[in-house]
Amino acid sequence: MSDSWNGGAAAVATLTFDVDAETPVLAHGARYAEHASTMSHQAYGPDVGVPRILDLLDELGLPATFFVPGWVAEQRPGLAAGIVERGHEVAHHSYSHRLPTSMAAGKERADFERALEVFSAQGIEISGHRAAGWEATWATTDLVAEHGLLYDSSLMGDDRPYLISSDAGTVVELPVHWSLDDWEQYAFLPDPHVGSVIESPVKVLEMWRTELDAMRHYRCLFNLTCHPFLTGRPSRMMALRQLIEYGLERGDVSFVRCRDVARRAAVDPALKPRRVAPPAPLS
Amino acid sequence: MSDSWNGGAAAVATLTFDVDAETPVLAHGARYAEHASTMSHQAYGPDVGVPRILDLLDELGLPATFFVPGWVAEQRPGLAAGIVERGHEVAHHSYSHRLPTSMAAGKERADFERALEVFSAQGIEISGHRAAGWEATWATTDLVAEHGLLYDSSLMGDDRPYLISSDAGTVVELPVHWSLDDWEQYAFLPDPHVGSVIESPVKVLEMWRTELDAMRHYRCLFNLTCHPFLTGRPSRMMALRQLIEYGLERGDVSFVRCRDVARRAAVDPALKPRRVAPPAPLS
Amino acid sequence: MSDSWNGGAAAVATLTFDVDAETPVLAHGARYAEHASTMSHQAYGPDVGVPRILDLLDELGLPATFFVPGWVAEQRPGLAAGIVERGHEVAHHSYSHRLPTSMAAGKERADFERALEVFSAQGIEISGHRAAGWEATWATTDLVAEHGLLYDSSLMGDDRPYLISSDAGTVVELPVHWSLDDWEQYAFLPDPHVGSVIESPVKVLEMWRTELDAMRHYRCLFNLTCHPFLTGRPSRMMALRQLIEYGLERGDVSFVRCRDVARRAAVDPALKPRRVAPPAPLS
Amino acid sequence: MSDSWNGGAAAVATLTFDVDAETPVLAHGARYAEHASTMSHQAYGPDVGVPRILDLLDELGLPATFFVPGWVAEQRPGLAAGIVERGHEVAHHSYSHRLPTSMAAGKERADFERALEVFSAQGIEISGHRAAGWEATWATTDLVAEHGLLYDSSLMGDDRPYLISSDAGTVVELPVHWSLDDWEQYAFLPDPHVGSVIESPVKVLEMWRTELDAMRHYRCLFNLTCHPFLTGRPSRMMALRQLIEYGLERGDVSFVRCRDVARRAAVDPALKPRRVAPPAPLS
Repeated sequence: MSDSWNGGAAAVATLTFDVDAETPVLAHGARYAEHASTMSHQAYGPDVGVPRILDLLDELGLPATFFVPGWVAEQRPGLAAGIVERGHEVAHHSYSHRLPTSMAAGKERADFERALEVFSAQGIEISGHRAAGWEATWATTDLVAEHGLLYDSSLMGDDRPYLISSDAGTVVELPVHWSLDDWEQYAFLPDPHVGSVIESPVKVLEMWRTELDAMRHYRCLFNLTCHPFLTGRPSRMMALRQLIEYGLERGDVSFVRCRDVARRAAVDPALKPRRVAPPAPLS
Repeated sequence: MSDSWNGGAAAVATLTFDVDAETPVLAHGARYAEHASTMSHQAYGPDVGVPRILDLLDELGLPATFFVPGWVAEQRPGLAAGIVERGHEVAHHSYSHRLPTSMAAGKERADFERALEVFSAQGIEISGHRAAGWEATWATTDLVAEHGLLYDSSLMGDDRPYLISSDAGTVVELPVHWSLDDWEQYAFLPDPHVGSVIESPVKVLEMWRTELDAMRHYRCLFNLTCHPFLTGRPSRMMALRQLIEYGLERGDVSFVRCRDVARRAAVDPALKPRRVAPPAPLS
Repeated sequence: MSDSWNGGAAAVATLTFDVDAETPVLAHGARYAEHASTMSHQAYGPDVGVPRILDLLDELGLPATFFVPGWVAEQRPGLAAGIVERGHEVAHHSYSHRLPTSMAAGKERADFERALEVFSAQGIEISGHRAAGWEATWATTDLVAEHGLLYDSSLMGDDRPYLISSDAGTVVELPVHWSLDDWEQYAFLPDPHVGSVIESPVKVLEMWRTELDAMRHYRCLFNLTCHPFLTGRPSRMMALRQLIEYGLERGDVSFVRCRDVARRAAVDPALKPRRVAPPAPLS
Repeated sequence: MSDSWNGGAAAVATLTFDVDAETPVLAHGARYAEHASTMSHQAYGPDVGVPRILDLLDELGLPATFFVPGWVAEQRPGLAAGIVERGHEVAHHSYSHRLPTSMAAGKERADFERALEVFSAQGIEISGHRAAGWEATWATTDLVAEHGLLYDSSLMGDDRPYLISSDAGTVVELPVHWSLDDWEQYAFLPDPHVGSVIESPVKVLEMWRTELDAMRHYRCLFNLTCHPFLTGRPSRMMALRQLIEYGLERGDVSFVRCRDVARRAAVDPALKPRRVAPPAPLS
């Protein structure tokens, strides 16, 4: 039991926060820098959401993982270090939040390495990576392996950790999913047009609690993704708190940082490496 | 009563699973083969969803029908045979999941026959067909009849089986509907853009249970369509289990494979053949 | 009290059914005639939905109003007369379901008059009109007045009947609203792309019951619009039945045909005519 | 405590109504002036919604703030003065409801000043401004300061008031948010295409009540935005009433006009001015 990736827990919960700030909107078009309301909507994330999230985690005594684009760390000196000082993990979330699948060849590597340089200059130790917009290419996990990172968290091929082998080595994949992402529930912007109807935190809490229970049944990784500019709003914070308290009360859910579960997964003899590659053409 | 298509049950439930895997996305554009996250999202269907669904059906002792594109059967040897070995039906779901309504003339036939060849080579006996994307043309049921299949399940002209007569013979139609499809409730992809808000399984269970009750009242065919890459997720599996258990507890719902209800419908003297044809121009 | 449009009821409920059949899709593009699944989805309305609705109304002993495009009445001889024989009103819903706002000048009149000719040939007495897609132009109520109809039901300027005066005479407007329309809740088609998420009848029933209660408070016209191809589905029929039964149990809701409430409104001294006209330019 | 912006209340609630009438649709395209149904849908706001809202506020004895485009005030003489006479605040909501972010350079100033002229001519004292569509540019708060207004309410950088310093002076920002706006919940138009699914007031009431409770916890500004053409509908009015009554029953929520909370915020020593400016390029 103790050799397994989950350390004997029914479900392992990784609370992750993608601190995108202005990047997803600016990556959509540089002109949005002039849209003051929209920029303030995004700045709310690091300015109001992150402190509120850090306070909640303190209060609950739980560690979390913050995926930060290099540009955000650069523009807000002290943000990444401040997160680490509170006991959390900061991880690689691209430099610019431009999508790997929409970049010209070679650009993904440059963007990837530029973020590593930012974190290195700030003394932030990086163990893992998450592709911008969860839009990895097949080169993404190679880059992760080549740069000696332990894990990636961008793919959706399972709901438990799995191992990806590439020429550059083996990487632990901590899979994500759209249904455990606050973006599809809460995000709304008229321009660039983002989102559909804004859901109530009551619905989101119910949906995520149901998934947590089902993941306890199936013994999965509950890899939750929240964005401080979305989940940092008051009633959404209350829903997040209730979700976590629900998990704590179950007694069989382990809350850890991504790097902690990745370390266990890397040496779990039951997890076999998969080789990931593009499918055959449909012809 | 025993001569009727429903064998005396208040409602007949056909649990169907469309094992699309990567096909709907690749049919949208070959470039998506390079989108590693999206491809992993689709591969989850056969890799994780199907085994989980087969285990649930085993546990409940119920048979189901799996509609599989020929390309998927080809790319994953053993998938179709493995489903049949567990007591379920495998049925024809096109070769490529390209939509008949968007194909150039003659292409629909070629795609249709190529899938039959794949299943024939794998020793899978095919009794029925469902058009990719539920986008049949008027030629579709002719193709089904011409190739000696018993039924089609792509039209929406009723909520009970009906007979379609064509020059090539008579086919049983097992109608589908968007409201009994997990796609509209759960599917989300940013690119290709698919879906709107992701619904909670709590809502979906409630909606489908309400429809099952109403179909018991109206004595209909509860022809449910789930996709393993969507419904295979933990809490959605729990909702599917609860829906089935609810049906079993009613005592008047019969759970059968599509070919079983089609065989009964084919000889039900109360079902009259309809001739299907395009409407007159609006002029 | 007895002189008022509502005859003393807290709310007046007009159950209306827009029997569009294939027209909204064909108006979108003639090529859709080849889309067999989509055409069957639309044909379900007159073929399955209308008989089921008529049976429900019989059982509850209530009259309703069916807005039928001329093309639909023409293609399905006996449909309109059959509705009238069951005690309901058939009203004018354009000939082709093409939107007045998207028609070239002069076409709206031709389409309007062609429908009147169809109904006249079938011996159907027409008292009122509803614009296709609720997309009236400023000429629409003039056409209604000029042809001697009593009422229109396409505008949204109030939630009680109002009078519209034009050069051709005065027309009673029975206003509609998107929130009392089943289309926004239930409609889904991939191509032409229609709808977003498909809602549960449980939600729709709750929303409409809440509106009925509020309309009893504010003493309004509960002018409900359902489409047989949507609401004809089993669980939606059950929701409609529950809504009506809820209204009947209140004891202060009057269920009438559109022409009945229009006749009362036309002579209610409290209703003042409004002149409707385009707004000034925004400049 | 008494020096603080919230005057000791747990949450401060500003009920605001954006009386847009036809402007958002006409700003989308002048051709929509010919769409009679859509124009009536918008006119419902000032014609039916505003009187109903004023009656509710009277009954509850609460003050509110109405943001009115200059064009609307001009087209409906007496509307703005009538609102002020009932004890409410009328504030600046652009002249034309064209979005500042989509205007050519210089046009924002002209539109801004034209609205001030309209209100000046009508004797309406203006203390604050809200950008059309919540699409402010960085010049917007400069314009607000330059014209001596006390506050702006268009940005989303916090959920408490904050101070914005510009060369022209300091402005109080009363931030808004998409989740406290009735538009994303209720708006639906087919053309111009607006909205997705129409939500039930039951959901909206639950969501806003949850946010009010969370804002009481975090001590925020509950700055609610409703549109009379949307919220003026019967069941939505009932939901608004229930929300307000819920807040009143809490005993620690203060309901005030925007100018009242802005006056307190302007002299709260705990609020520090922020300089707002475009972010650095993503490079």
